[in-house]
Order: sequence, then C-alpha cells, then structure tokens
Amino acid sequence: MDLEDNIFMLPGPVKMHPRVLNAMSKSAMAHRGEDFSAVNREIKNLLKYLFQSQNDVVIISGSGTAGLEAAISNLLKKEDKVLNIVNGKFGERLYELSKVFAAPIPLIFDWGKPMDLDEVANALEENDVKALTLCHNETSTGLTNQAQEIGKLAKKHDILYILDGITSVGGIDVRPDKWNADITILGSQKCIAAPAGMAALSISQRAQEEMYDGTTYYLNLKKHIKKLRDNDQTPYTPAIPLFLALLETLRMIKEEGLQNRIKRIERLAIATRNAVSSLGLKLFPDERYASNTLTAINYPEGIEDTKFRSILREDYKVVIAGAQDHIKGKVFRIGHMGICSFTDLLATFGAIEAALKRLGYEFEIGSGVRAIVEQMQ
Amino acid sequence: MDLEDNIFMLPGPVKMHPRVLNAMSKSAMAHRGEDFSAVNREIKNLLKYLFQSQNDVVIISGSGTAGLEAAISNLLKKEDKVLNIVNGKFGERLYELSKVFAAPIPLIFDWGKPMDLDEVANALEENDVKALTLCHNETSTGLTNQAQEIGKLAKKHDILYILDGITSVGGIDVRPDKWNADITILGSQKCIAAPAGMAALSISQRAQEEMYDGTTYYLNLKKHIKKLRDNDQTPYTPAIPLFLALLETLRMIKEEGLQNRIKRIERLAIATRNAVSSLGLKLFPDERYASNTLTAINYPEGIEDTKFRSILREDYKVVIAGAQDHIKGKVFRIGHMGICSFTDLLATFGAIEAALKRLGYEFEIGSGVRAIVEQMQ
Repeated sequence: MDLEDNIFMLPGPVKMHPRVLNAMSKSAMAHRGEDFSAVNREIKNLLKYLFQSQNDVVIISGSGTAGLEAAISNLLKKEDKVLNIVNGKFGERLYELSKVFAAPIPLIFDWGKPMDLDEVANALEENDVKALTLCHNETSTGLTNQAQEIGKLAKKHDILYILDGITSVGGIDVRPDKWNADITILGSQKCIAAPAGMAALSISQRAQEEMYDGTTYYLNLKKHIKKLRDNDQTPYTPAIPLFLALLETLRMIKEEGLQNRIKRIERLAIATRNAVSSLGLKLFPDERYASNTLTAINYPEGIEDTKFRSILREDYKVVIAGAQDHIKGKVFRIGHMGICSFTDLLATFGAIEAALKRLGYEFEIGSGVRAIVEQMQ
Repeated sequence: MDLEDNIFMLPGPVKMHPRVLNAMSKSAMAHRGEDFSAVNREIKNLLKYLFQSQNDVVIISGSGTAGLEAAISNLLKKEDKVLNIVNGKFGERLYELSKVFAAPIPLIFDWGKPMDLDEVANALEENDVKALTLCHNETSTGLTNQAQEIGKLAKKHDILYILDGITSVGGIDVRPDKWNADITILGSQKCIAAPAGMAALSISQRAQEEMYDGTTYYLNLKKHIKKLRDNDQTPYTPAIPLFLALLETLRMIKEEGLQNRIKRIERLAIATRNAVSSLGLKLFPDERYASNTLTAINYPEGIEDTKFRSILREDYKVVIAGAQDHIKGKVFRIGHMGICSFTDLLATFGAIEAALKRLGYEFEIGSGVRAIVEQMQ
C-alpha cells in the first residue's frame, strides 16, 4: 500500500494531519527539563478541555489497552468484585483484564444490541461490587452505549465507574464529571487523530482515594499524577515524539472547538448512515444506538469481505475495515472520526458503489454519494 | 531550545537520523494486515541480528521500564526470591520492580564501584533464588558491569538471569546466548538511536518455559511471542510510527555492521576519556569499568552544575546531562552512543573547554579537543 496516498477510513488508527507529522519529527529533545515540562503542561491543560473535566489527567506511553489495565489494576485487587458490561469485543477486553486483576462478574449482551438497563440495575442489586466497567463506544460493532445512564446507576450504588472512552472522547460528547465516571480512558489513534501508542486517563478525586499502592509499577497512576502535579513530568521515559504529536492534535481540536468537532463528526455519521440506507444496506448495530465515530454495515448476500475490500484498496486506494471474531466476513466498518472530511466520505462511497456494482449487487448507482452531498449543504 | 539545531549529547534519548524521522512520519498505516506484518517481520529478524541471539524477541510499546517490568512480572511471583545486584539507579529500579512482583534480596554496592563477584557468589550460595537481575550498563554512573561473569554464576546455580541491556545493546558487545541471559532488555532511545517509547526483549526458551500465565495483561510476554510467531503481529495496538522508525534504525545498524558500530562507539569513548584526562578531570566511576556508551565526569571544585550546563546549552547549543539522586550537582554525563560522531565530540569538548575557562577552571586550552583529534586518525 502507498502509505502517502490513500483514503484512510479505519476505525483507528486514523489519518494524521501534516501538522501533526511535522510536530512529531524532531531529531532530539530532552525529556527531563523545562522544554518537555512545557509540552506536558500544555497537553495536560488541553486534555482537561478535551475531557470536559477538572479531573487530574495521566498520559501513558502505551496502547489503549495499557490505559484500561492502568484503571483496573490500580483500583481493584483479586478479592474486589467488578461488574463488566459486555456487548462487543472491547467490553470483553475489560472483562478479560478484570479476570487478571479482580473478581469479575460479566453481564453479557449480544454484539450490536444495546444493553438492558434493567438487567444492569438488577445485577447491581444482587452483587456487592466495588466497580463497574463499560465500553462507551464499541468499535467492534459500531454501537454507542448509554454511558450517562450507567453513571446514574453507579452513583445510586456508590461504586467506582470505569469508562472506556477510547473511541468516543473527542468525537462524541463525553462528560466524566456529569456522568460520575471515575476513570475515563482515551486512545490516541482514534477521535483525536494522534499517532497510536498513547492512552490518556481522566481520574476523579474519589478514584485517587480508592487506589491501592504498590500493586503495579509502570502503570502506577498515583506516581503519574504526582509527577504531573509536581513539575509536569512523567515517572518513566515518555514516548517523546508521540507527545509532541499529541500536543499538536490537541491544539487543532482547541482551534476547531470541541463542540464544533463533535457536531462535524455527527454530520459525517448521518451522511454515512444515509448513504448506507440509500444503497439498500443495513447497519449491523441497533440503529437507535449507531455510533457517530464509525459505522458497521452488514454485507449483503453474496459479497465476499476480502474480495470487496481488496477492490477498494487496490483499485481505488480506499482503506476500510472488516470485522472481528464471530462477525468477521459478515460486516465491514468505516471510521469517520478525527480529521475525516465529507470529501473522504465521497471517495469512500464512490469506491464502495463501484465495487458493489462489479461484484453484482443491485442498487441505483450514485444514490450513496448523492446522500453524502445532500448532507454537505 | 531549538530542537532542530543543537549538539545533542544526552545518555538517551539520543539524536535521530533524518532517515529515521522520515520513516516515522507516515500519515496512516493499518496495523492489522500484511503491510504491518512485513514491517514487524523485518524488525524481528534485525533484532535477532542486533541481540546476536537466536532467542525469540518481543517489542513492547512502552519505555525501557515497561520492558524491565515485563521480564520480572512474567517470570516471578510474590513468593519467588530474586537477587538484585545494585550499583546505580537502574540496578535500583530492578530492585524496586522486584519489590512489587517478587521477594527481592538486594545486594548493594556504592554507585560507580564495580560489584564484588565474590559477594555475588556468596549471596547465591546463601539464598535459594529463582532469578538474578543485573543492569549491564549503568547510565546513572557511567559504569559497565561484568555481565558475562554474572552469567557464569547464574549458570552454576541454574537460575534465571534478567539482564538490563537498555544502554548497552547496540553499543557494547552483548551476547545473551553465550552469557546465559534469559531475558535481555533493550531501550529504543539509547544505542540504536530510535525514538523513545519502545522496549525490545530477547527471551530464551528456558525463560518461556518458566513464565507464569495470567499474572499480567499488556505486558504478557507469551502472548507477544505467540502473535509474532503466528503472523508477525502484536497482541495490542502497536505505536505504529515508532515501529516504522525502529525498522529504519535497525536497517542502518545492519548497513554499518554491528561490530563496526561497537568499534566506532569504543573509539568515541576512548577519545572522550582521553579528553577528560587531558583537561585534568576525573571520571566518576572506577576507570577500569568505564562505559563505552556514556562518560560520567566529576565536576572540579567550584564548577556549578546548572551554571555550567546552561552556558553549554544557551551559548553553544550543546546539550549534556547532569546526574541524578545523591550525585546530582557533582557529576555531568556525556552520551556518545547511537549516531554520535567525532565532530559531535569536538563540538562538545570545545564548548566544555570554553565554559570551564569562563568559570575559572585552570587547564591548558585546546588540550581536550586535541585528544579527540588524536583519536580520529
């Protein structure tokens, strides 16, 4: 694949802006000193803007999964019960992590189906849990879970609320303070369009009070918070180029305005869903909870995943995603977060239409791209 | 500081080559697919060349400390005794990590002093340990420990040997297979001159057999090894730009030839030590064990650390390091690993001479740079 020339529409990692690449490409920077502290200080303040929260923030040099592990391993011990709400691969990951560090109670719903809030309420009545985990936006299924409603239940039961916001923060309105989320986790290569390799956490005062000491080292959140509070530093060597890139992406979000960005992403999502519908295709998740940051679409009868995505990639330089685990081959996914534009969407749906036609699927040609243009007005 | 124009002589992070920066700055790359597998496969093979070992390798998106934690947390449990040899800050870090995950027995020597091999042998006779840890090259003190001798003791006692090679691999001859090192850890921003944010581990078959299951998640080494063996993938999202940069640095090492590189670094080290001596300055560590990848130098009476390094940095754009913990203010450190050149050293010692003169230190001007030129022939 030509890495410099393509339409890149994965649900993460997403395309980075040239400004971000330029910021990242510095040949040398010392990380123990005021130059780096200044970078980290600005990142910290911009992250608070991004999270719409006054919570302390922490930046981990590691993937989103490292961020989830940090939340779970600092707050829970083997004897602590935790309720894991699961309706997709990343809800499952929180459950898998909880198996390593805590005593998990999974509450499992079908992939692509919304959780049943009554069942969650019952599970909380029946089990004396210390915490609850939720994946806000399920990248695996294209569904957004009702994070705010879960926050009300967490508050009612006075438990810790760990919210995976890896593919929502910066693309969907997320309100840790209003929703009582004690730790909210962001992944760098998703809505904020920074490079892969960082996680950021927004951490409530209460979460800090409930943290254990000495159960983890690299991911010890108290140490990270202390270093950042003391002199805008990190306890261990940060991935310096990624921090420089992160700063630039956060500046770009501030320039655009977070709410403007959320609104732009919503318009892209509506355009995508309208195009899908115009082509006679169906969403994989329950439409009422369809995500604004990515769209998961069922393949129509007879369209083969590998063949379809190869045509897009080889003949039209459009990169989209298949699906994972038991829905692999049945679903394809389009990311429309970050710096994605209507013109990217037009290119994507033009290529989708051409590929579907070549593979024998029947529909009115041009109806998909027309739906995009209609939303562009 | 002007990040684009300086002489950057820290003991890590070190200056990166423009080829590496270019490789890093790609706007988009999918990590689940053949494009990334091809990158990872080439990295894997080049890492085996770099480690001079047929061991499996693992690449962690995280700092060197994450790499050390991976080694310790996969091999040891709370009830397992481990001997930590400590004669500097990073030996201490291995001890701190062992406190979290195992039952450590520290064997402490003064900073800058070589360990006493008889004392190590006695400690192994007296304690039934499962493993032993050693920091090969102490960045904090500029001393290289006798890793090979420790390997003989580890073999004699049939214990696991965890070797921190973070600032030695790629700059000093390190031989995991010959030295019986079960896990050897490399830091990306040191001798190989890649960006900060990655650790690589060379892992023996025996270490794999002795690993525990399910005690860790993000740093689970068995999962990393399996993914790499199966299809050159990673279990969690890799820090993609850093991997692209890593590949380029490893290609550059192969082009130079590892042994040529080690020889070049040795010549730079000899030139540095000769220049130090010509200026009438003294090394901080025992000279017989002085490191080839960085040099730690005692400040002469009356030269103040902050003042001295500010002059270097502000007036001559030369960046060197102070020291940490109890030797802070008493020692300065010069890194000469990675792509460092004799011309970099000349600039550095020219600036050091000028600054020392301005601060009132007495010596024959030009004697330091002359010692460098002599070694350049």
